[in-house]
Amino acid sequence: MHAILDPAVKSFVPVPDGSHFPLYNLPYGIFSPAAGESPRAGVRIGDHVLDLSLVEDAGLLDGAGLPRGTFSQPWLNRFMELPAENRRLARILIHGLLRQEEPTLRDNAGLRRRALVPVDEVVMHLPVMIRDYTDFYSSREHATNVGIMFRGKENALMPNWLHLPVGYHGRASSVVVSGTDIVRPCGQTIAPDAEAPSFGPSRLLDIELEMGFLVAGENALGAPVPVDEAWDRIFGMVVVNDWSARDIQKWEYQPLGPFNAKNFATSISPWIVTIDALMPFACAAPAQDPEPLPYLREKERRTFDIALTVDLEAPEADGPVTICESNFRYLYWTMAQQLAHHTCTGCNLGTGDLLASGTISGPDKGSFGSLLEITWRGSEPIALPGGGQRKFLADGDRVTMSGVCAKDGLRLGFGEVTGRILPAVEPGQ
Amino acid sequence: MHAILDPAVKSFVPVPDGSHFPLYNLPYGIFSPAAGESPRAGVRIGDHVLDLSLVEDAGLLDGAGLPRGTFSQPWLNRFMELPAENRRLARILIHGLLRQEEPTLRDNAGLRRRALVPVDEVVMHLPVMIRDYTDFYSSREHATNVGIMFRGKENALMPNWLHLPVGYHGRASSVVVSGTDIVRPCGQTIAPDAEAPSFGPSRLLDIELEMGFLVAGENALGAPVPVDEAWDRIFGMVVVNDWSARDIQKWEYQPLGPFNAKNFATSISPWIVTIDALMPFACAAPAQDPEPLPYLREKERRTFDIALTVDLEAPEADGPVTICESNFRYLYWTMAQQLAHHTCTGCNLGTGDLLASGTISGPDKGSFGSLLEITWRGSEPIALPGGGQRKFLADGDRVTMSGVCAKDGLRLGFGEVTGRILPAVEPGQ
Repeated sequence: MHAILDPAVKSFVPVPDGSHFPLYNLPYGIFSPAAGESPRAGVRIGDHVLDLSLVEDAGLLDGAGLPRGTFSQPWLNRFMELPAENRRLARILIHGLLRQEEPTLRDNAGLRRRALVPVDEVVMHLPVMIRDYTDFYSSREHATNVGIMFRGKENALMPNWLHLPVGYHGRASSVVVSGTDIVRPCGQTIAPDAEAPSFGPSRLLDIELEMGFLVAGENALGAPVPVDEAWDRIFGMVVVNDWSARDIQKWEYQPLGPFNAKNFATSISPWIVTIDALMPFACAAPAQDPEPLPYLREKERRTFDIALTVDLEAPEADGPVTICESNFRYLYWTMAQQLAHHTCTGCNLGTGDLLASGTISGPDKGSFGSLLEITWRGSEPIALPGGGQRKFLADGDRVTMSGVCAKDGLRLGFGEVTGRILPAVEPGQ
Repeated sequence: MHAILDPAVKSFVPVPDGSHFPLYNLPYGIFSPAAGESPRAGVRIGDHVLDLSLVEDAGLLDGAGLPRGTFSQPWLNRFMELPAENRRLARILIHGLLRQEEPTLRDNAGLRRRALVPVDEVVMHLPVMIRDYTDFYSSREHATNVGIMFRGKENALMPNWLHLPVGYHGRASSVVVSGTDIVRPCGQTIAPDAEAPSFGPSRLLDIELEMGFLVAGENALGAPVPVDEAWDRIFGMVVVNDWSARDIQKWEYQPLGPFNAKNFATSISPWIVTIDALMPFACAAPAQDPEPLPYLREKERRTFDIALTVDLEAPEADGPVTICESNFRYLYWTMAQQLAHHTCTGCNLGTGDLLASGTISGPDKGSFGSLLEITWRGSEPIALPGGGQRKFLADGDRVTMSGVCAKDGLRLGFGEVTGRILPAVEPGQ
């Protein structure tokens, strides 16, 4: 079903050793070749971006049956909503064009110069017009850690957690592309033992290491997607930083869940790695006990082995420090289960929906995906290189998350999602 | 600031006594003149819809400075994102065109025949491409009733409730226009004393009587909207039925809030009544104690006097029964406070966002806005006309909500939002 290209094939475009973007990967993004130029679609290869709008205009993707101008849009949605067969054909044709031995683009000096843009010249944009954004809570380790902190060890997991992939609706408008600065949010918080809340900049600004998938195609309202058909609706994946204001969250979240604590920004990596590209890294998801209800039972519990890292760079420190090494495969609930659960009521998912995993924590302290867990509510600060420490984020801090797959000599990655904290702007200023 | 047209002026289009749609109202909607024809914008007057795309094409709105084709779009978003001044000019010009003494349209038999379509011939569509949907919880009476049922009288209101307008992100994709049938959702629920949940059709399907407002214009990410500037961002209002599966909600909602319990459908009335049209019905919002924090303190606490009714029509009953009479003015938190709170973190709101009020319950049992409250969790069933009763919704039930303003001889309304329950479709069927 999934066309797996030959990972051994090389490109005429140089790919540095250790690059996340070998010829095999070909993730999709939206870029401008230079600041001020119109956004269009591209794929990343090594340290270059292939301008798909030019390649499409030149007729080199004609075999894929794309509607004219598919890659000249400022979003990938038009491409994503095409039948899977057309999208696969496009990937195969793009792969073919970039092969070492294929002269069409290689020997067309003019097109090659225009269509292959060095990555340090481009401006990346949000790749998808995000319709609805849903955030799950699918890491057992994360849910357990948070549960222990707030409710004690005996009641760490809520009674529903092992039976369904808990999730909530997030804010789509504030999903931003990697590199966007994050303004520290203001909000209501209440000091311990205070009688009334106060308003001001969040003091417990946190990260959440997540991954998300982008939905392709529509199911009609009232028509659930069976769990074993859910994979056909997943276009590809990105790394997600779900910025979180813990002090705002603590005061506001009862009884309807997080709202202002999360609505100020969610950052995603700019390159969408397709499910086809990830197939060599498929692996079994964790066994589930108790067995889930039939609508969540998968014939094959598939997930991906994606190593994730989080680096923190504080302005006063001597360089960045790695604060988390986790893996997507730790998640208890799979993407297929999330999608099936989301639609079991008849909820319609559409092209461009973003479904994120929730914080991806592993079993050990070194693999926890939020500062809340890493510093255990601030009680065990992170030591910064060269002195100093962090409990939560300070102004000027930069957080960079990355994901890499490696197996049998094949290595590919997601690049990074990075963001820097700017000081708060209080209303009225 | 708000141009208030003269309510005494009559139209050459007949307006039946008691109509929600006198010349003064002129609410905007999206309609097709007949099934299969392309959607375009219109205003409602009496029992007719004025086709604004034809009126605009004929040059009769030229003075409003609208970009060409503004009213030929399948959504109102392009119109809503225009500066308030242009939108007001459009309303004044449309009002002028429909006046009794104005011959331009009245005496142009051809245009009049094409542009004024009897309402029983048109198909109404969702009027706005809804970007993000947020649902608040702003009725003190509703929050108190629910709190008493689930936590007892002493702890009815959560500690945060009187300090901030509690809200959560809802599902935008499943917002549907009045008249859309609602398929009963399936989901996980747990029986009292059961050890494990089961999956099937919701047995406690409920309504929530709400109103919502549509946002006009954008604030940049990181730029809060001060509470006294919030009114400039409100385009108009609709009546909202936030269908809710109480049994799914009860099992899933801890700790991240309602998800599947609400994501299957939210219905809105098709005609957006502008804030300008509502200004004669402005009134003071309830006094607040404790005084809210400065960012939520309004120079003028303005709300609207809008009488709301809910009718239930069961298939086996002898006609409909009115199950709720409430009023928008009961709400403790105003629309301006909701908008200011939503953006105080820097969250960006955009044209087409829908912000709903939460269930609007009044002080008396007859004014409760959900079956949960009306039947007090099913313990006090509703008697149906001709026999039979209801605790929650049965298949075939139709619920119709309506809103009307009346003052000093001027009366206008929202029409209705109606929906009928269809039997569940279980996954795999």
